[in-house]
Amino acid sequence: MDIDAYVADLGRRARRASRAMARAGTAAKNRALEATAAAIRAAAPELKAANARDLEAARAAGHDAAFVDRLALTDAVIAGMADGLAQIVALPDPVGEMSKLRYRPTGIQVGQMRVPLGVIGIVYESRPNVTIDAAGLCIKSGNATILRGGSEAIHSNRALAELIRRGLAEAGLPEDAVQLIAVTDRAAVGALITRPEYVDVIVPRGGKSLIERIAREAKVPTIKHLDGICHVYIDDAADPDKAIRIADNAKTQRYSPCNTMETLLVAEGIAGRILPPLGRIYADKGVELRGDTRSRELLAAAGIACREATEEDWRTEYLAPILAIRVVAGLDAAIEHIATYGSQHTDAIVTEHHGRAMRFLREVDSASVMINASTRFADGFEYGLGAEIGISTDKLHARGPVGLEGLTSLKYVVFGDGQVRG
Amino acid sequence: MDIDAYVADLGRRARRASRAMARAGTAAKNRALEATAAAIRAAAPELKAANARDLEAARAAGHDAAFVDRLALTDAVIAGMADGLAQIVALPDPVGEMSKLRYRPTGIQVGQMRVPLGVIGIVYESRPNVTIDAAGLCIKSGNATILRGGSEAIHSNRALAELIRRGLAEAGLPEDAVQLIAVTDRAAVGALITRPEYVDVIVPRGGKSLIERIAREAKVPTIKHLDGICHVYIDDAADPDKAIRIADNAKTQRYSPCNTMETLLVAEGIAGRILPPLGRIYADKGVELRGDTRSRELLAAAGIACREATEEDWRTEYLAPILAIRVVAGLDAAIEHIATYGSQHTDAIVTEHHGRAMRFLREVDSASVMINASTRFADGFEYGLGAEIGISTDKLHARGPVGLEGLTSLKYVVFGDGQVRG
Repeated sequence: MDIDAYVADLGRRARRASRAMARAGTAAKNRALEATAAAIRAAAPELKAANARDLEAARAAGHDAAFVDRLALTDAVIAGMADGLAQIVALPDPVGEMSKLRYRPTGIQVGQMRVPLGVIGIVYESRPNVTIDAAGLCIKSGNATILRGGSEAIHSNRALAELIRRGLAEAGLPEDAVQLIAVTDRAAVGALITRPEYVDVIVPRGGKSLIERIAREAKVPTIKHLDGICHVYIDDAADPDKAIRIADNAKTQRYSPCNTMETLLVAEGIAGRILPPLGRIYADKGVELRGDTRSRELLAAAGIACREATEEDWRTEYLAPILAIRVVAGLDAAIEHIATYGSQHTDAIVTEHHGRAMRFLREVDSASVMINASTRFADGFEYGLGAEIGISTDKLHARGPVGLEGLTSLKYVVFGDGQVRG
Repeated sequence: MDIDAYVADLGRRARRASRAMARAGTAAKNRALEATAAAIRAAAPELKAANARDLEAARAAGHDAAFVDRLALTDAVIAGMADGLAQIVALPDPVGEMSKLRYRPTGIQVGQMRVPLGVIGIVYESRPNVTIDAAGLCIKSGNATILRGGSEAIHSNRALAELIRRGLAEAGLPEDAVQLIAVTDRAAVGALITRPEYVDVIVPRGGKSLIERIAREAKVPTIKHLDGICHVYIDDAADPDKAIRIADNAKTQRYSPCNTMETLLVAEGIAGRILPPLGRIYADKGVELRGDTRSRELLAAAGIACREATEEDWRTEYLAPILAIRVVAGLDAAIEHIATYGSQHTDAIVTEHHGRAMRFLREVDSASVMINASTRFADGFEYGLGAEIGISTDKLHARGPVGLEGLTSLKYVVFGDGQVRG
């Protein structure tokens, strides 16, 4: 099979479908999402049968339990996919929204209109529910999409893509608005990410090595994040109860998400009061602590074990029950630490001091910056965007959780009545 | 000289300065711009002396009159640069603006804050006034910038950069917020555009071949446009007077800008009424016409010369007194032509039919889409942005004229009072 020709054919179809999607009305797009949701609910047995083939192959290939877990289409996951589509239906349609229309002295009226990006390529690992989330967001935002899911989920993804295409057809929208790369050959990814004539943006989701490779080789812009080295800084003027609650939640509510805290910074003036009770909570939950000299002293005095942190610890996204801890002089040192070691993902300050809170908010250059809240809130659903297509730590276009708006851009619109330039 | 090391040093300085610029207040930034404007006015003789060296070398090297003209720092150009800075002072500071702050059911308040991009690299040709325009926009938007102007303007640019650095120092801002690559070695461009650790975005300005090369080789995102193949579509329902006025202005007000019309599309039903008088205007102004069969018939009957257009003409940005003309069946054919041959820069419809106007506005996927106005309005100043750093025909981030907002992005901000995720 000629992979390049196959992907180019998908690309041409997607480009054509993208024009119809860009002019599609809100009602038609919602109808497609609702029809797909209904089809998913109705087809649960078929979906589980297709998924069973993937699960069997994954187990035979020796994948671990966590991998198999992510791959599984259980009744709960199937219901969740359908519910997710219903949530996207409920979101306002971003396309066509006009803003900032103002008259200029020449008499023309100038503003901006929100429009779809065009064709979105999504490369993801073996989580079949991403097929539905991603397609749903692309449909609602008026984009066409080409999906490339992990090869281990191929039967599940084919079955899901078929339901989406039927949903599109029911709504009178082009089926090619959502296409799945139905071959597992890895060359297909290379073909997809190097064809700007067919694809306007690539959203890579998955492990860091996959994303790095795609970012390096892509000839198409990407929306992505590599690391989530998130910090909580507990200021001198923090409310100790809030500080302990937030630092506990940011680390232990779940260990694997990218918005989980990896390094805790504590101001010198409050460290003696915060670290012993907080360290006890972590120790009880089995979190391994790695600290600088001062935090180790304070923890040791309270009988809590803490390894010595190395330079490498400040740069590490553990995604595990391990936490780096550093006592800092105050706000400036905290901001400096985050600028040096952070990944511009999500960082929070805990303080009741208004001026320091506002300085942290302005000066920390991360996609999400928080005052007195857990970093775990950095998520499209918690922010009210509905589902998210991904998270961006890039500086251009969208930063942070990327929902419908991040899949659109603003073009200028000019209303005149015969004006010419003098 | 080790060019890589030299550019890396500029990069490190810029990165450091960018943090101070990001937290700089509006007053300090305005003071730097005002001080620079005053210095430019005061230093006119020195600027002209430095410029004279460039002009002499350019003439000796055999550059043509248009080139020398763009290079020259006349009294008018010098006053224009100072006035341009004063205009930037008058623009609102985009940095720190917060929007869409809404409470979520969890009690956190989520919104967005506008923040600088960081370090902007600007690569441009031998127009020394760009040095001031670009630096002014970067200062106001809280960015650091590294400027790489055409080597023929090196003495002028050095003199201007020195004035800007003095202006920054007077305002208590870091001089390294604006740095000029002071060597003419072309390898410096390659070094600049491949260092994402030092540069957040590259704005290439100049000829298409320069921009294509930079876009191809850059490892840093770019804000750019390649072609300006702009269209005016005159609909059946156009007011003939407005149509003729707009089509005349869009082509002949100036021939070289990227927003000048290159192809005129006329609906069949009105072509007989529009083309003879409009063709006469073009002929009197010396515009060479290249048309399809139908437009040639109509023009010939009125005694106006028109060559036969080839497929290539629809794809050509003439930047010259040449115009391609095509008679189309109506709106759908016009939209189709623009989608096939356009460059997503600026396209206009002339019509009094509301429904068709709004369809054109929504369905034409260009950075600027206009109703009953000349394409020549697609410009930062005409849009009220102040000066522009460039024009983008990319889909992500900024589209169209890029002013202060395009040099910023939005980060998420979260205000809490101890909330944690459940």
